[in-house]
Amino acid sequence: MRVGILTGGGDCPGLNAVIRAVTKSLIRHGQCEVLGIEDGFQGLMEPLPRVQALDWQRVSGILHVGGTILGTSNSANPLRDAATLAQVGRNLAALNLDVVVVIGGDGTMSLAHGVAQATGVHCVGVPKTIDNDIAHCERSFGFDTAVTTAAEALRRLESTASSHHRVMIVETMGRHAGWLALEAGLAGAADVILLPEIDYDIEAVAAHCRAREQRQRYTIICMGEGAKARGAALTVREQVAGSPDPVRLGGVGHVLRMQLQPLLASEVRTTVLGHLQRGGDPTPFDRVLATRFGHHAAQLVVQRRFGQMATLQHGRIGSVPMAEVANVQRTVARGHELVTMARDIGVCLGD
Amino acid sequence: MRVGILTGGGDCPGLNAVIRAVTKSLIRHGQCEVLGIEDGFQGLMEPLPRVQALDWQRVSGILHVGGTILGTSNSANPLRDAATLAQVGRNLAALNLDVVVVIGGDGTMSLAHGVAQATGVHCVGVPKTIDNDIAHCERSFGFDTAVTTAAEALRRLESTASSHHRVMIVETMGRHAGWLALEAGLAGAADVILLPEIDYDIEAVAAHCRAREQRQRYTIICMGEGAKARGAALTVREQVAGSPDPVRLGGVGHVLRMQLQPLLASEVRTTVLGHLQRGGDPTPFDRVLATRFGHHAAQLVVQRRFGQMATLQHGRIGSVPMAEVANVQRTVARGHELVTMARDIGVCLGD
Amino acid sequence: MRVGILTGGGDCPGLNAVIRAVTKSLIRHGQCEVLGIEDGFQGLMEPLPRVQALDWQRVSGILHVGGTILGTSNSANPLRDAATLAQVGRNLAALNLDVVVVIGGDGTMSLAHGVAQATGVHCVGVPKTIDNDIAHCERSFGFDTAVTTAAEALRRLESTASSHHRVMIVETMGRHAGWLALEAGLAGAADVILLPEIDYDIEAVAAHCRAREQRQRYTIICMGEGAKARGAALTVREQVAGSPDPVRLGGVGHVLRMQLQPLLASEVRTTVLGHLQRGGDPTPFDRVLATRFGHHAAQLVVQRRFGQMATLQHGRIGSVPMAEVANVQRTVARGHELVTMARDIGVCLGD
Amino acid sequence: MRVGILTGGGDCPGLNAVIRAVTKSLIRHGQCEVLGIEDGFQGLMEPLPRVQALDWQRVSGILHVGGTILGTSNSANPLRDAATLAQVGRNLAALNLDVVVVIGGDGTMSLAHGVAQATGVHCVGVPKTIDNDIAHCERSFGFDTAVTTAAEALRRLESTASSHHRVMIVETMGRHAGWLALEAGLAGAADVILLPEIDYDIEAVAAHCRAREQRQRYTIICMGEGAKARGAALTVREQVAGSPDPVRLGGVGHVLRMQLQPLLASEVRTTVLGHLQRGGDPTPFDRVLATRFGHHAAQLVVQRRFGQMATLQHGRIGSVPMAEVANVQRTVARGHELVTMARDIGVCLGD
Repeated sequence: MRVGILTGGGDCPGLNAVIRAVTKSLIRHGQCEVLGIEDGFQGLMEPLPRVQALDWQRVSGILHVGGTILGTSNSANPLRDAATLAQVGRNLAALNLDVVVVIGGDGTMSLAHGVAQATGVHCVGVPKTIDNDIAHCERSFGFDTAVTTAAEALRRLESTASSHHRVMIVETMGRHAGWLALEAGLAGAADVILLPEIDYDIEAVAAHCRAREQRQRYTIICMGEGAKARGAALTVREQVAGSPDPVRLGGVGHVLRMQLQPLLASEVRTTVLGHLQRGGDPTPFDRVLATRFGHHAAQLVVQRRFGQMATLQHGRIGSVPMAEVANVQRTVARGHELVTMARDIGVCLGD
Repeated sequence: MRVGILTGGGDCPGLNAVIRAVTKSLIRHGQCEVLGIEDGFQGLMEPLPRVQALDWQRVSGILHVGGTILGTSNSANPLRDAATLAQVGRNLAALNLDVVVVIGGDGTMSLAHGVAQATGVHCVGVPKTIDNDIAHCERSFGFDTAVTTAAEALRRLESTASSHHRVMIVETMGRHAGWLALEAGLAGAADVILLPEIDYDIEAVAAHCRAREQRQRYTIICMGEGAKARGAALTVREQVAGSPDPVRLGGVGHVLRMQLQPLLASEVRTTVLGHLQRGGDPTPFDRVLATRFGHHAAQLVVQRRFGQMATLQHGRIGSVPMAEVANVQRTVARGHELVTMARDIGVCLGD
Repeated sequence: MRVGILTGGGDCPGLNAVIRAVTKSLIRHGQCEVLGIEDGFQGLMEPLPRVQALDWQRVSGILHVGGTILGTSNSANPLRDAATLAQVGRNLAALNLDVVVVIGGDGTMSLAHGVAQATGVHCVGVPKTIDNDIAHCERSFGFDTAVTTAAEALRRLESTASSHHRVMIVETMGRHAGWLALEAGLAGAADVILLPEIDYDIEAVAAHCRAREQRQRYTIICMGEGAKARGAALTVREQVAGSPDPVRLGGVGHVLRMQLQPLLASEVRTTVLGHLQRGGDPTPFDRVLATRFGHHAAQLVVQRRFGQMATLQHGRIGSVPMAEVANVQRTVARGHELVTMARDIGVCLGD
Repeated sequence: MRVGILTGGGDCPGLNAVIRAVTKSLIRHGQCEVLGIEDGFQGLMEPLPRVQALDWQRVSGILHVGGTILGTSNSANPLRDAATLAQVGRNLAALNLDVVVVIGGDGTMSLAHGVAQATGVHCVGVPKTIDNDIAHCERSFGFDTAVTTAAEALRRLESTASSHHRVMIVETMGRHAGWLALEAGLAGAADVILLPEIDYDIEAVAAHCRAREQRQRYTIICMGEGAKARGAALTVREQVAGSPDPVRLGGVGHVLRMQLQPLLASEVRTTVLGHLQRGGDPTPFDRVLATRFGHHAAQLVVQRRFGQMATLQHGRIGSVPMAEVANVQRTVARGHELVTMARDIGVCLGD
């Protein structure tokens, strides 16, 4: 079999571990040739496809390396017009690929589904998201690394917060789902955790900070970038996207600072973690999880279970149809165990 | 309610996170007073019980701190004789405790069960094991930290192995269960993983190393301390325990070195991780998991579901009767997904 | 002798190590009582002084902890008016302090000098600066930690830069001195390093990025917050300070992005490290260096060498008069060994 | 010019940073071709020399990578007999090398000096030692990384020591010089530090532990592998080397345990860090320092200052004749600032 692999969308710690596991599993299985497609779908959209042969040596030593050796693209859309799609089809035919293992988020799964239907190429999916928000997948690789990075940042900022008696706001990723802010906040001992799923009442947040001003004298706030104040029609991010000067904005954490500062005696400061959360080497947990996803994807390939995406459900690796996850998101329910737990140990959820 | 907490057996990263979550949850619930019992059951076996009050401030700032603020004991046995048990009973009565939250391994659970039956005190359990081998619990806190420590050691030793073209053996904990060696080996890209559950054939291990001598020129072996050569009646550890000079032995990894060196051209070296795996600050993953266990134990207390131990099964927190886990171990099945995966990506399991 | 200790200005990793070393050295020397003054000079400016006794146990276990157990203040100015200064004098008299060990930057040294002259209290100084820019001190504690944090951030962002073929800008601290940007850039393998001391030519920076677009396909830029474009009358920071909406600005790295994006084909992204650089636990190097400074300050106290500040010069601990360092800064000379070296290994300095 | 580079002796974090800096500096200087010699002098002793071309791309991305991309050898001795030396001479002639940059310890410098005299090849040296014991060099790259590894191990073991009220012994590298044990002990808050340079009195060590048993209830001992008890004719290491069964010995830390356990009530445990100290990625400090050494070596090459070795003295990079450092060691003087400081803050030095 000739198998292509591509990584699409934003990079994520553990991509190389998946590439390695897919490749090694297929080579050990035998009768497989593996090709890496460069820069996501972009590598299939150009007049000549850009690919590299993946053999045992090429994928050795990359288990713990962040990023993707194949490159990726956020913007490449193979479905953008008929000519592009036709080019993709010609390239797939020229490469003589039986199946493409697509590693990406819900957007990439959606594109893969479309390409498969239009060109007849077979696909197998591996979910990739820093935000841990892909449907039917309770934990995706890269998430533990992002939680670790954000939790360590929270701890690091606690030194300054407690020394200067300040309120420190840390903005994490998470436009639509608050998993990262929630777990990082719990792991980093945040006093306030604000999620996109639970609109915050600025007075409730301020009251919590003021209560702490009396005793602990500092407060750590962990805020997902999609969080918004109650009653606000748009998230801050959406407001900014429509403003004339979005580039000047450092991040929504700065907006919370503007809201909060007038209500408090302590100084309020903001740190936006941004790309630090995506980069870096995967944690050992993510290396194992990414290897499991990659290994399972290789099994889907050799068992010809096309159109399936590897998942983790109830602690077990399995698979679901790719179509089921395209453009669906897993968000934090208000009654989720972790939310209840956060409240029970005294964390303010902003409501 | 008056609630005692004790930590028994070997220390483990995340104990303080459990203590914090139990205490904060009970205080927030209201009408609870929390007492920390010092040095495990030892604190109940002396003429005067050794305890400390646990309030909100005492358990703040300990989430990420390794070890246990209460102290622990490996050897204290409240059931060792009638006088000791009677003393424990008097102390429990004097402290007027309604329930004791016992954080420990299968041995500690067994002791707690015995004490509960003899004295009538209620108990609630929280599983603790670096080895991840407690029955009915698919992942215990502290394990991720130990895997991380061991996997980083494997990576670190790879520098030297590849520069000097050596075979490096790393001995991890795990007398009866190979989970730690298995996950650390997978996360640290070990070439050979030897588990207590799969006796190794020294010739098979040597053959794998020799094949690598030709191409990669170095080999990393990750070995659980309970691993033994096929046909050996006793594990190396057991042999050593019966030998006249056990103290001189640095660890069973040194024995594998003696077996392997004559069969290879490369130099073979051993590193025994030992206590490094138990110590240190818990990873963010373990901080969250330990908090979940502690929070659930507090719920078991307030719901008066005594005799239950918190568990993680199928990705969810729940509980099982403590009696079911006492002296039962969860070991690695030969057909476990991770074992199959390891073989499929080219790892030698020694058989 | 009765000795006070205070920490002033921004917090810095290693402050607790200094406090510990001063205290332990004085206690071991004998006949010394040590008092910690809270929140810098603020603790002396209030109607009742805020202090805490420092004994052996209080300073045990803090060697590796970030921040300062005494608290600090950026804004407290004991010289702001006659009444304040008189209050400080009364408090010093009431506390019956023979000498105050002042741990702070050039601003704090200047205040200490003023307080000493006005009140007659003796002072001994310990230099503190994340920026490593105190005169007569070639390496201050906290700097190695900040370099480590920033260098790790550069590495982390390289994953994303290379996967997405982007230009990544990292803004470090350093308003007037570029030491942090320089060493972090060297340690983090930055391709471009921009310092406050060397105005950059945006075209030169763009040309370097474009040359890399052809081959390596990504560029990492490390930029001190005080860097400015050649010909600009004001640094970006100064411009912003005078603008009507400074709070919206995420940092000067965003301005470089705006300048650079139109000149390049690759996407340009910015990360502002901000407070992450000040916080966190000190590196082992900084723990030892801070201990040396603290130990030397204690020697200055017992030898009654008042008015001196501990320094590191030519690799040795020594001291200089505090007056010599007040309001003087050590900046990066264009011909400094590290600058020449950076150029010689192909780093673009922007000129 | 044709320039060879080789790395000899044990591996050390930062070797790749030196290789990168030498290579990039020479390429940027122009008119230089750089060849990497494989496995130290071994690559010159075989019938055909083993070398690889080093260009810009080959040395990119290795700054932070542990080990050496060229490989090394502990045992290769080009001076072992006339035939070998003649072969080395023929290979050097065949490769047409003008100069060889030799990165190694005092033994390697000695060999290089001998080869230079016998064959007429020019050499330039870069000092390499985990132990920081090369004469005329106050800080060598790799040392900071080793200190960091050992100090973190000390902290990690403190969790267990304090939870179980134990005495924990950590054995570090350092056969003849105690720099590593000393700085790691200081950075890791060891209570006892034992150096090869100061024979310890087991009673003094035990007395310190007993005093702590009363109050802190645990003790951390950091011990260099060359430390020996007062009055012992041989170090433990030397005794073991002459014993029939050295391979069974886990390390000299185990011997101290045997000496100490009978004198104490607390349990005593030992951890031998071994190869963990050599491996792993260099710290940012070591990346910069190694780059400085490499850059300076390249300058020595282009300035034809042959026979010189790069050094760091009084905080500055410079050079000394290689002959001066061959077989000379820098050890810890009893009156060294750090020793005095250790005593002054209450550390027991064993005497």
